[in-house]
Amino acid sequence: MSFKQIKCLITGGLGFIGSNLAIKLVELGADITIVDSMIPEYGGNLFNIEPVKNDVKINFSDMRDTHTLPYLVKNSDIIFNLAGQVSHMDSMKDPLTDLDINVRAQIFLLEACRKYNPNATIIYTSTRQFYGRPRYLPVDENHPLCSVDTNGINKLAGEQYHILYHQVYGLKTIALRLTNTYGPRQLIKNPRQGFIGWFVKHIVCDETIEIFGDGLQIRDLTYVNDVVDALIACVDLPKCYGEIYNLGGEKTSLIDLAKQLISIASKGSYKLVPFPEERKKIDIGDFYSDYSKFKKATGWIPKVTLQEGLKRTIQYYETYKDYYL
Amino acid sequence: MSFKQIKCLITGGLGFIGSNLAIKLVELGADITIVDSMIPEYGGNLFNIEPVKNDVKINFSDMRDTHTLPYLVKNSDIIFNLAGQVSHMDSMKDPLTDLDINVRAQIFLLEACRKYNPNATIIYTSTRQFYGRPRYLPVDENHPLCSVDTNGINKLAGEQYHILYHQVYGLKTIALRLTNTYGPRQLIKNPRQGFIGWFVKHIVCDETIEIFGDGLQIRDLTYVNDVVDALIACVDLPKCYGEIYNLGGEKTSLIDLAKQLISIASKGSYKLVPFPEERKKIDIGDFYSDYSKFKKATGWIPKVTLQEGLKRTIQYYETYKDYYL
Repeated sequence: MSFKQIKCLITGGLGFIGSNLAIKLVELGADITIVDSMIPEYGGNLFNIEPVKNDVKINFSDMRDTHTLPYLVKNSDIIFNLAGQVSHMDSMKDPLTDLDINVRAQIFLLEACRKYNPNATIIYTSTRQFYGRPRYLPVDENHPLCSVDTNGINKLAGEQYHILYHQVYGLKTIALRLTNTYGPRQLIKNPRQGFIGWFVKHIVCDETIEIFGDGLQIRDLTYVNDVVDALIACVDLPKCYGEIYNLGGEKTSLIDLAKQLISIASKGSYKLVPFPEERKKIDIGDFYSDYSKFKKATGWIPKVTLQEGLKRTIQYYETYKDYYL
Repeated sequence: MSFKQIKCLITGGLGFIGSNLAIKLVELGADITIVDSMIPEYGGNLFNIEPVKNDVKINFSDMRDTHTLPYLVKNSDIIFNLAGQVSHMDSMKDPLTDLDINVRAQIFLLEACRKYNPNATIIYTSTRQFYGRPRYLPVDENHPLCSVDTNGINKLAGEQYHILYHQVYGLKTIALRLTNTYGPRQLIKNPRQGFIGWFVKHIVCDETIEIFGDGLQIRDLTYVNDVVDALIACVDLPKCYGEIYNLGGEKTSLIDLAKQLISIASKGSYKLVPFPEERKKIDIGDFYSDYSKFKKATGWIPKVTLQEGLKRTIQYYETYKDYYL
């Protein structure tokens, strides 16, 4: 698909996935507007778009702002709707803010599209979070849902709104349930964007990673460029509208992930520590997803091996760590 | 279980199910406080508690009010949390109000319990709504979820919050997914509380019921006293905390339901009309639930036959129609 002259709006575009997407879309010739609220600790970072800063429009605003959003939505052909609160701990401490960002603001966006731009395509980044503790593996899209935190409940509602607005109003929405995305431009200075960035931070700083439990928990990791490819792969496929798809990637145990990072960086270390009580309650055991539905629909498969992805990640943060620590 | 000296708070207690519950709990000797916002068209009706008006405390307030709710919650042993917005059409016209009532206010309630009264038992009335169009029948609690309207999305989030607050904070929450409840004290003057009350209204007024499609759609109906029994049956069963249960009842097609009502009342009529476009999109086909999980846990089964329940319903509205039309 050619993106020449195509107007793309990226919510959360200064964040981890959004900025990597913007860089790719510039390459493809798209006309890009980034929206970001720059809420501290949410991952928005102006340095993320350094390579394309002269090729994109940046609009600082919050999706909870009921007036700017309709205005911005009006002129977009494709809306990559990535903005969200993703921190588990923050969502538990302040469920109402999480609700406002992950549900209320999503309704604003969809209502704005319905009223002012019903032809826009809207790609929403959802999460595997609300599958909870897997009842079977790999987890497909029909797996029962059981959120283990506030964030999961709200993200699910946000996703369902996207699908509903297709079913009822015909909006061209697609939801991708991401597993564990990693790579350059992720917030790593605290664990708000998940354990991988947090591991990477420790390695880059030559510190000791603390792994909860026995470290044998399995996760599937997707390199951010593969997620970007997935976001782009479904854009012009009408059969994907109103559909929900898992993404996924290469499996690893937490302990093997730590070992690989240490080996690549030739520094850092890890140790096993008992599960903190509050984390134990929400531990989901092993998780990896079945992404065959998306593969079948779009041909997408993850291309970057874990070894290669981790290498690029370490390299990025070694070079630019001052902008992330 | 004895309810003597037991302090019960009923949110939405002037509504359909809440008022029937209050009447039963007075009989059982409970100390009852009713909370109701009296939002027009939501079903709150002072006449509903006429038989027990001197035996309950009534507190007019809105669950969205962040200050009164913690105060009310503080002194309750059992909270029957029935307040909610239930109208499909209202939820589609105004998703944000639906979100505030069915999610945000639920978080207020749970947070208030967590902080000020973590020992309270909280029974939440959820809905079969978010199962969407059944993939198999009867529908059990593991059925995939696919809301066909805003109301379903928000009710699901509200339910999940109740379960989460058990898992993470140990609150004694139980969620019952109701199917189609009918009986005395339901709002019938408009279809906001579902098709059964709306059918009843037409029959009592000697009017013609309009049934969409061929009228062969199956629904399962629960008489309100059976729902009240279910709410009470699980209150003191710790094994039910954090669990979700379907309720259910006798099956009937819409056309047979209309015929039964006409036969009981000896008036009214029905006719088949084509599905309006907007309803067709959200039509779920046949639905009936599997409530064996709840039966196994509590011994509960619906006791009132459809024939008997409809008789009592018609009789009630014939006698008191001035208070409902």
